[in-house]
Amino acid sequence: MASTASLRVAPQADTYAAYQTPLAVRQACRSGALTGPTAGMAPGYVQGNLAVLPKELAEEFLRFCHFNPRPCPVIGMSEPGSFKVPVLGEDLDIRTDFPGYRVWQDGEVIADTADVTDYWRDDLVAFVIGCSLSFEEALMAEGLPLRHVDRNVRVPMFRTTVQCVPAGRFSGRMVMSMRPLVPAHAIRAIQITTRFPQVHGAPLHVGLPELIGVKDLMKPDYGDAVEVLDNELPVFWACGVTPQSVIAEAKPSFAITHAPGCMLVTDRRNTEFAIL
Amino acid sequence: MASTASLRVAPQADTYAAYQTPLAVRQACRSGALTGPTAGMAPGYVQGNLAVLPKELAEEFLRFCHFNPRPCPVIGMSEPGSFKVPVLGEDLDIRTDFPGYRVWQDGEVIADTADVTDYWRDDLVAFVIGCSLSFEEALMAEGLPLRHVDRNVRVPMFRTTVQCVPAGRFSGRMVMSMRPLVPAHAIRAIQITTRFPQVHGAPLHVGLPELIGVKDLMKPDYGDAVEVLDNELPVFWACGVTPQSVIAEAKPSFAITHAPGCMLVTDRRNTEFAIL
Repeated sequence: MASTASLRVAPQADTYAAYQTPLAVRQACRSGALTGPTAGMAPGYVQGNLAVLPKELAEEFLRFCHFNPRPCPVIGMSEPGSFKVPVLGEDLDIRTDFPGYRVWQDGEVIADTADVTDYWRDDLVAFVIGCSLSFEEALMAEGLPLRHVDRNVRVPMFRTTVQCVPAGRFSGRMVMSMRPLVPAHAIRAIQITTRFPQVHGAPLHVGLPELIGVKDLMKPDYGDAVEVLDNELPVFWACGVTPQSVIAEAKPSFAITHAPGCMLVTDRRNTEFAIL
Repeated sequence: MASTASLRVAPQADTYAAYQTPLAVRQACRSGALTGPTAGMAPGYVQGNLAVLPKELAEEFLRFCHFNPRPCPVIGMSEPGSFKVPVLGEDLDIRTDFPGYRVWQDGEVIADTADVTDYWRDDLVAFVIGCSLSFEEALMAEGLPLRHVDRNVRVPMFRTTVQCVPAGRFSGRMVMSMRPLVPAHAIRAIQITTRFPQVHGAPLHVGLPELIGVKDLMKPDYGDAVEVLDNELPVFWACGVTPQSVIAEAKPSFAITHAPGCMLVTDRRNTEFAIL
């Protein structure tokens, strides 16, 4: 697939240089200087997805996440009404520190915005959910090539036939991201990502995509297609798009998520999340 | 494949009952009461393969094993001329404590015997090499089904095109054992066996056997064929038959190995070999 401007997910090199620390990224979000994807910024630090829900849904959503830890690893959560998650950064403000947000009403997007201060309510609860950028860094640190990174496109993601464990009003199919790897790298990737259970952990499937309802690897439901070569296996990890997909299906009266690729950069190091 | 008497690798249930401890197994070998396969005996304890070589070859063989730890994990070794390996059992006698032996001269088998006391020489060095029975126990303890165990046949083994690291007069292709597993079990098996680097460790290949020179999964080079179902992946581990295969090719003037399936039962617990 051609790497066109519209497919680019990482900023240019000069942008990286300006955003080496989590605080620098968050401050740029707050000031409005940064409104695009965060992949590659503040290397070594955990980035997170966002789900904000009214308190009356938050308990059920937490239960959903708790029993679906692979796609929905909650790494931080606010008190009801609070926009602070100190465990991820003392200064952190959920309303301003993502480069972009989507505001949802009754399952429809009503706004794409870089600041949700005007939408904040006293009954909202914020969930920050671990993301695959953390384990991808660990994979690349060991020299495993990731095709979507090499191509500078988004990772391909598929709505599989694997059902999440339902909880209250939340249920649905698990979304998985797919990375093609030669068998020896697939084995090594299983070992490496097993060390990171809070950022999706080990793959959930390898090698036989039709068994999880994936009929055409070149037609992902989200992200961009990358080919799987004859000497490679498709390796599938639970994906943080799952909670968004499940929230969209539940059609809550109100919700806020991050805009695609526009993550929160936290003060936690990726290595802190390795269990060994 | 039909489970015929000639294919049976495990003894009958009443035999197991008599051999619950490593010492009981070794004493039965010494007395000549036990001359058959040891699979399933003294559950929980490490069993080992045997390679005995003259001192003038032993240094090269140790070097070969050291740089090929996956197929050749040396878990015990005698002083030159000694038939003791106290680290694996204080009372242990390499000459008598295996149920059966093969004696080799210039690459040919010259004797199949239950006792090599008469063949022992002052220049011999014994190597005890870890075996897959240890990790199979760990896999089964987690409920992963192993087809060759269910069928009571030997695991299928293949001489792959993967070359061992050569050392002195020892070189050759790696033999791998194959177990068919559904993808989720394959991933779990990679995790479990990663914990046991001294008994072959993680698989070396999964899913695309033609890449390692295996053209027909139903035609193993050693052991018995088991089918791989449509919803399964063939998973390959480095196999302890590799050192025997390499020794046979090197055609040393003299060597002793264990008879197929007739292992040494040691006092070390399988769990001791888990690195975490």
